Amino acid sequence: MFNIAVAQSGGPTAAINSSLTGVFREAAKTSGIDCIFGSINGIEGAINDNFINLRKILTSDCDCELLKKTPSTILGSCRYKLKNYAEDSSDYEKIASVFRSHNIKAFFYIGGNDSMDTVMKLDSYFKEVELDIKVIGIPKTIDNDVMNTDHTPGFGSAAKYVATTMQEIIRDSRVYSIPSVTIVEIMGRNAGWLTASSCVLHANGESAPHLIYLPESKFSAERFLEDIKNAQKKYRAVIAAVSEGVLCNDKQYNTASGVIDAFGHKYLSGIGKYLESMVLESVGCKVRSIELNVMQRCSSHIASLTDITEAENIGAAGVRAAMNGESGVMMVFRRISNNPYRVEILSSDISAVANHEKTFPTEWINGNGNNVTIDALNYFLPLIRGEPEIEYKNGIPVHFRLDQ
Amino acid sequence: MFNIAVAQSGGPTAAINSSLTGVFREAAKTSGIDCIFGSINGIEGAINDNFINLRKILTSDCDCELLKKTPSTILGSCRYKLKNYAEDSSDYEKIASVFRSHNIKAFFYIGGNDSMDTVMKLDSYFKEVELDIKVIGIPKTIDNDVMNTDHTPGFGSAAKYVATTMQEIIRDSRVYSIPSVTIVEIMGRNAGWLTASSCVLHANGESAPHLIYLPESKFSAERFLEDIKNAQKKYRAVIAAVSEGVLCNDKQYNTASGVIDAFGHKYLSGIGKYLESMVLESVGCKVRSIELNVMQRCSSHIASLTDITEAENIGAAGVRAAMNGESGVMMVFRRISNNPYRVEILSSDISAVANHEKTFPTEWINGNGNNVTIDALNYFLPLIRGEPEIEYKNGIPVHFRLDQ
Repeated sequence: MFNIAVAQSGGPTAAINSSLTGVFREAAKTSGIDCIFGSINGIEGAINDNFINLRKILTSDCDCELLKKTPSTILGSCRYKLKNYAEDSSDYEKIASVFRSHNIKAFFYIGGNDSMDTVMKLDSYFKEVELDIKVIGIPKTIDNDVMNTDHTPGFGSAAKYVATTMQEIIRDSRVYSIPSVTIVEIMGRNAGWLTASSCVLHANGESAPHLIYLPESKFSAERFLEDIKNAQKKYRAVIAAVSEGVLCNDKQYNTASGVIDAFGHKYLSGIGKYLESMVLESVGCKVRSIELNVMQRCSSHIASLTDITEAENIGAAGVRAAMNGESGVMMVFRRISNNPYRVEILSSDISAVANHEKTFPTEWINGNGNNVTIDALNYFLPLIRGEPEIEYKNGIPVHFRLDQ
Repeated sequence: MFNIAVAQSGGPTAAINSSLTGVFREAAKTSGIDCIFGSINGIEGAINDNFINLRKILTSDCDCELLKKTPSTILGSCRYKLKNYAEDSSDYEKIASVFRSHNIKAFFYIGGNDSMDTVMKLDSYFKEVELDIKVIGIPKTIDNDVMNTDHTPGFGSAAKYVATTMQEIIRDSRVYSIPSVTIVEIMGRNAGWLTASSCVLHANGESAPHLIYLPESKFSAERFLEDIKNAQKKYRAVIAAVSEGVLCNDKQYNTASGVIDAFGHKYLSGIGKYLESMVLESVGCKVRSIELNVMQRCSSHIASLTDITEAENIGAAGVRAAMNGESGVMMVFRRISNNPYRVEILSSDISAVANHEKTFPTEWINGNGNNVTIDALNYFLPLIRGEPEIEYKNGIPVHFRLDQ
């Protein structure tokens, strides 16, 4: 008998707990595996010997089903980056010591690009010091920017939230008889996948969003205003989806840089607010910017069933890969067909994934750089399908909780 | 045989189309009523003779069910205020002429406080000129600030959205091991009902929101910072719900006044951003402000079934009141009991309602002015119960649409 450990890292998603459930359920039915440890706050828990016994926390199938539908990370997260062990091996030695003391033979790290760096380094270290501990990466991120996988768990649910909310914003924006512009700012610093996914509304006959701007396409304030004015010739209520990572005249307007007001106070505003003030000054019509903020990464109440199911499956596949002797890999989706939608789960060498970023294909951006193509639409549609059954108490979705 | 007309006015909600459905369905089965006209853009449609025949639009029970779950106003809205007819009767004469030409004998106006002013004036005018046209007000507003009714249609759905989203924000805020403050700005210029309703999470064992600030209670920046620091002694991730209408040191920070940056650009920011910058400067921890923006008034995908059902019922009751000869009234809810939750629908004289505002009871605010009492919790809970069944196409909720 031996033990395993699993941890969650990076920014929250609606599906990261589903991948944890997948790891747990598969491990729980694998002969040979005794304790299934959850590492608190990502790799920090492994360094500091801070684990919980998941078999004591997840005691029923109901617990597992509820956890799958609970957003964010039940084990907490971290942004901790391991140093190269050639320079400083102290963290590695601590982890090795902790894993040895708990007889942990496999470690599963659910995270994005940065977290795969940890998987790569840890696997490499264990091989170097000849410790037989398997290290497996399970991808997750709403940004969908991980290499070698068709898409990432967490993305489908974020995209479903964005589309659902955008459609409600469209209804809201059409209520008055006057012209208006609505700018919806969507997450994605370097990759425009989530912003681009708002195009799925076109499949249901919506003309909006009329304009879609991604960081992968050069953006200019002047062209943006031209686009708005052109769209206004056709639509009373113009809706533009703008990625937070869009560089406006080569300058990034993000919540970290902010705006200093006349009193010296710093206002942390993004590109949406900036473009809003520009439209107000140059076009003069009713204008509003809306930041979808953290809601787009944690809205489990409108999660994609496809996403939540796949997130569990890829977690489970990670356990099987480790049991088959794999290590230093990240589990990936390969899309077999679109209609019917089918994927298979494979593993990819971690070095091809860690520290890389998969941006939105420029061939899926239209010539004007202000919308996306039908190929993008067809790629996105299967990922947002289906709705998990939500349990409510007092009219509010029930979450699985460890703390208060 | 005679005809009737119905219109929608004021800001969007998730339930205003359900009240329209209630008027339509009740009228459609009332003998004597022939055409059921929908007035486009509120009272403007009545002035400009801009109607649609709802029997041609809503041709099946499926249409009606879908309309009930579609947010915003299918007929469009307006903010048009009628002048006193003693000063200028031209609008009234136009409306009377239009109604006479279409044999319209009853007019139903679905709206908030301002719209009830239109109901009052119109009813008064028709009585003055001895025109037998019934005028009935059907309340709606997410602000819940209408007099003489236990609550308003639209409020329960907004409150359910706020609670659901707030809970997801709570999960998101607890992910890292560092202290943080999250400020959630919620609609309500003068009345704090919607912000206060976030307390429903306490019924499900959440400690958050830890602080709740309403316009009905005096607010000071200094006390707010004290409250934050005190809450931080107990909670790593502090969550504060703040009404957009809170006056900070007697000054209103709303999206209309805004902030001028160093380049002279105007940024339209509310109280949330202002408090965020204050916490950043004075406390120095991770801080984020989140504006729930228009989503809180149009999120039909997480509507309250109680709200949607009551909205239809109160619309239908309006038609019955008119058929019984009532006019110059607004339909109201009276709560009979909380457990089991039961309401009855009555009518209230319009003069007691129009141009008044029902603010949140100060006796439901705690002594420190930073939270609400258990009486408030018990008032809110029944209003957010139940979930309408949502129809999806391509993974996105289906809306009833007239235009593109």
